[in-house]
Amino acid sequence: MRKPYFRPCAGAPLPLRTLVTRTVRFEEVDPLGIVWHGRYPSYLEDGRVALGRQYGLGYMDFYHQGVMAPIKQMHLDYQLPLRFEEEFTIEALLHWSDATRLNHEFVLRNSAEQVITTGYTIQLLTDPQQRVLLVPPAFYEDFRQRWRAGELV
Amino acid sequence: MRKPYFRPCAGAPLPLRTLVTRTVRFEEVDPLGIVWHGRYPSYLEDGRVALGRQYGLGYMDFYHQGVMAPIKQMHLDYQLPLRFEEEFTIEALLHWSDATRLNHEFVLRNSAEQVITTGYTIQLLTDPQQRVLLVPPAFYEDFRQRWRAGELV
Amino acid sequence: MRKPYFRPCAGAPLPLRTLVTRTVRFEEVDPLGIVWHGRYPSYLEDGRVALGRQYGLGYMDFYHQGVMAPIKQMHLDYQLPLRFEEEFTIEALLHWSDATRLNHEFVLRNSAEQVITTGYTIQLLTDPQQRVLLVPPAFYEDFRQRWRAGELV
Amino acid sequence: MRKPYFRPCAGAPLPLRTLVTRTVRFEEVDPLGIVWHGRYPSYLEDGRVALGRQYGLGYMDFYHQGVMAPIKQMHLDYQLPLRFEEEFTIEALLHWSDATRLNHEFVLRNSAEQVITTGYTIQLLTDPQQRVLLVPPAFYEDFRQRWRAGELV
Repeated sequence: MRKPYFRPCAGAPLPLRTLVTRTVRFEEVDPLGIVWHGRYPSYLEDGRVALGRQYGLGYMDFYHQGVMAPIKQMHLDYQLPLRFEEEFTIEALLHWSDATRLNHEFVLRNSAEQVITTGYTIQLLTDPQQRVLLVPPAFYEDFRQRWRAGELV
Repeated sequence: MRKPYFRPCAGAPLPLRTLVTRTVRFEEVDPLGIVWHGRYPSYLEDGRVALGRQYGLGYMDFYHQGVMAPIKQMHLDYQLPLRFEEEFTIEALLHWSDATRLNHEFVLRNSAEQVITTGYTIQLLTDPQQRVLLVPPAFYEDFRQRWRAGELV
Repeated sequence: MRKPYFRPCAGAPLPLRTLVTRTVRFEEVDPLGIVWHGRYPSYLEDGRVALGRQYGLGYMDFYHQGVMAPIKQMHLDYQLPLRFEEEFTIEALLHWSDATRLNHEFVLRNSAEQVITTGYTIQLLTDPQQRVLLVPPAFYEDFRQRWRAGELV
Repeated sequence: MRKPYFRPCAGAPLPLRTLVTRTVRFEEVDPLGIVWHGRYPSYLEDGRVALGRQYGLGYMDFYHQGVMAPIKQMHLDYQLPLRFEEEFTIEALLHWSDATRLNHEFVLRNSAEQVITTGYTIQLLTDPQQRVLLVPPAFYEDFRQRWRAGELV
């Protein structure tokens, strides 16, 4: 049983989630015949971008509001390798946080439904000068209210 | 004060370390003008490869012994951004472990000596079929004895 | 009117073709807000791999026959830029050649059907020691005969 | 004898040139053990950036003048492969052109001084709306005059 990356706070709404399918590209495979570990941030990004698009929380949604969401922490646990042309899924989850931050969890599975890699990223919201926002921007607060009200899942 | 990624075991020899200098390349910078977070595994790799070369522990040294050293865990804490053409250093440290694994820590600093990013990777040693080696290979055991004897630092 | 990259020889069968759709990823965009020119080989690869898969001419098909197909020439003409999240198509064509080589042409179009980039690659067939094959391997000769007989288009 | 990529116009000053040394990184090597052909644009970029820095013609020099220099054409001729940890040089040349464009040529050589890859890129100068500049900007005209006067080589 995997230890959870994020501990749910009491009364928090369920995480939002999405699933993306991707195929291993030739250029992602290393001389040992497996995907180089440094390509996985790109896989996580696919999941995060898909989730963001689904809920109006993409890079550009933030950008158009003058808000940046830099990644402050990234973590990856590699369990099984991926090979050229292998198809796999990226499950991305956004966990509720009372703080103004985005806590994403990721689960990659191969076509046999085996977990191959898990990981998480943590983003803060900042202004363009990269000062952390203490008060969340209106569009984000609105998103959180709809999430809490159960309108999103 | 940063919390250490690896707790030194009693009587362990000092970590091995090396320093690499690198300059931010245009293709590493994202539309927001800073290095995309997913490029940093490449920076860690530079440090790890340099350290490996220095101590005969490179990919190819392992490979020629029929040993693989896949990365099982990678972690990054991003503190300050990097910009195009910025020069920075990558300090790579190999921490002693009683287990057959490679525990690397990384500290990236900008030209003002500010810590911009820290992180770690954990590698296991396996055979070509990716079964974890329980008994360390001779060349690695020899390396560890010289390390413990203080011949490497 | 674009000058053709490859001049068809008399009596040659029609080119084989396929179409792939792809979306611009965040990590492909440079600080100027457009896809960095050096990412396009990856787009061409997508087209070439899809075509290869369709006709049994993929990297792995060659590899399993002990044949390599290194790229000897790559050419790109950039006409219009691509931006983050833009969807575009990659048309890949394989042109007939009497020589033992693979001549691919590529046409990238945006969602308004405008040609954004064109290009070509030329591959030779070699043995694992990278000596050019003068006599084509049987599976490849068979593929060419079916192509010439009109069984593939 | 290689056919020249750019034909010198009568009375043109000698090309400007620079030399960069680089080592093949693990992540650049493909499953066949050689550098993936799509990594070479990054090698050309290294040469172009070094030359630009040397003569005040870098991305940022243009950018600060409100000028962009998008790549309109890229061409690569691959002759010999590169392997992991191999050291090689990138010679970048800027050829004189009477038109407002940047014609770069590249010659990559391995440590045995063998030519491994050659190529060229062509850039136009545009305004931020990507309209081609018909009249060259002052700083660029000044650069060309010093080049023609033999003050740069």
